[in-house]
Amino acid sequence: MARWKATIAYDGSGFSGWQEQPGKRTVQGELEKGLTKLHKGENKKVFASGRTDADVHARGQVVHFDSSLQIPSARWPRAFDSVLPRDMQMVSVEHVNDHFHARYDAEAKEYRYLLHVGSTRDLFQRHYVHHVFAHAFDHEAVQRSLQPLVGTHDFSAFCANNTNVASKVRTLNAVSYMQVGEGEWCFRFNGNGFLYNMARIIVGTAIDIGMRRLDAEDMNRILHARDRRQAGMTAPGRGLYLWNVQYGP
Amino acid sequence: MARWKATIAYDGSGFSGWQEQPGKRTVQGELEKGLTKLHKGENKKVFASGRTDADVHARGQVVHFDSSLQIPSARWPRAFDSVLPRDMQMVSVEHVNDHFHARYDAEAKEYRYLLHVGSTRDLFQRHYVHHVFAHAFDHEAVQRSLQPLVGTHDFSAFCANNTNVASKVRTLNAVSYMQVGEGEWCFRFNGNGFLYNMARIIVGTAIDIGMRRLDAEDMNRILHARDRRQAGMTAPGRGLYLWNVQYGP
Repeated sequence: MARWKATIAYDGSGFSGWQEQPGKRTVQGELEKGLTKLHKGENKKVFASGRTDADVHARGQVVHFDSSLQIPSARWPRAFDSVLPRDMQMVSVEHVNDHFHARYDAEAKEYRYLLHVGSTRDLFQRHYVHHVFAHAFDHEAVQRSLQPLVGTHDFSAFCANNTNVASKVRTLNAVSYMQVGEGEWCFRFNGNGFLYNMARIIVGTAIDIGMRRLDAEDMNRILHARDRRQAGMTAPGRGLYLWNVQYGP
Repeated sequence: MARWKATIAYDGSGFSGWQEQPGKRTVQGELEKGLTKLHKGENKKVFASGRTDADVHARGQVVHFDSSLQIPSARWPRAFDSVLPRDMQMVSVEHVNDHFHARYDAEAKEYRYLLHVGSTRDLFQRHYVHHVFAHAFDHEAVQRSLQPLVGTHDFSAFCANNTNVASKVRTLNAVSYMQVGEGEWCFRFNGNGFLYNMARIIVGTAIDIGMRRLDAEDMNRILHARDRRQAGMTAPGRGLYLWNVQYGP
């Protein structure tokens, strides 16, 4: 039996999120179904770096699983190709030691959020970008507002209510907001951990700043108020991508 | 009663093509359903510039319809927004004279075909680009091969078998092939009319040339042979876009 670390991409629009739920099509469910098929019916489990919600995409989700199949690393992606649905893709697979854990060993994660701002939405991007109808949008204010978030803070203001965790202190290593296309902008969040809906609530608040419903300085004020009610709406899942997960050497 | 010319976009991946078919979700079916809803149940028909097949997209399909509703041009798109599914979009609507016909008055059409060439496919583009697995691809040969197609020719070689039309002579006003992104290439075909599968068979033949299964010069030879069997495969619908339809002044 060997342990494998697998990096997978998926299009979140066809899934009810990561976690297995009876009667729902989930990423975990489809992945385990495929893996079980490769193992000729032997029930297989996968463990992810963390869950993603409905509509949320991944370019570099990481999971681990154990297998007694003798498949070289480079051949695994093709093996998965034959058993996974078309909206999931195995990016790479590598052999790791038996103690590796996709969730507990993760040191940092990067999330990206794609925003399109303008007076017309692009039909073909409807599952992949969050469109904000606006003629005027203060991108510079958004950029400025994000800087106070870098560092170690209690992020209670940007955490979904009724989230039960011991501590809401997290560290954001880097946050940026830049133009990536015509009317298209990208938020990047690199952090040691993310609270439930944290990236999406920060983006929702940033949209209020871009629309001038809030000032750039309000982001910092809201952070320190630690009050979810002062922050903006939770931005929709469709713009969010789990971009990669970083592990130690 | 007034006649309206409407320009619509749709994502072909969720439709069984344009034409209404019992039990199938089609573009025409959804559009007429929406229009009928706007007319409080009065049965409405739309007439398109031409059909598109399953998986084929449109950025600028044109249709006409008659209506007694008193809606100004600029308000029509929003009216449609409330009754059309999310994978269709009304781009613009304008009032035309009662003799306008979306099909018979069309003077030219532009089709585009998006190709991605490389060793890995992009999961998020799977419905929108045709991916060709290749390490080497002769783009320059493809470019060269297309030039003899410009002009007025009998395009029998690039027409699906069992197509029953009086004449297979058509005029291509312009054909081009250029890079539009990393590994992404776009064919453009502007012509006065297109035979069934014509753009897709030309693209399929061009792919054979890019893969060096055929020479650039074979395109011209195949054109003049007028024999469908000598041309390449019909490229998949997912890469094809009806880009616009041109009408006289």
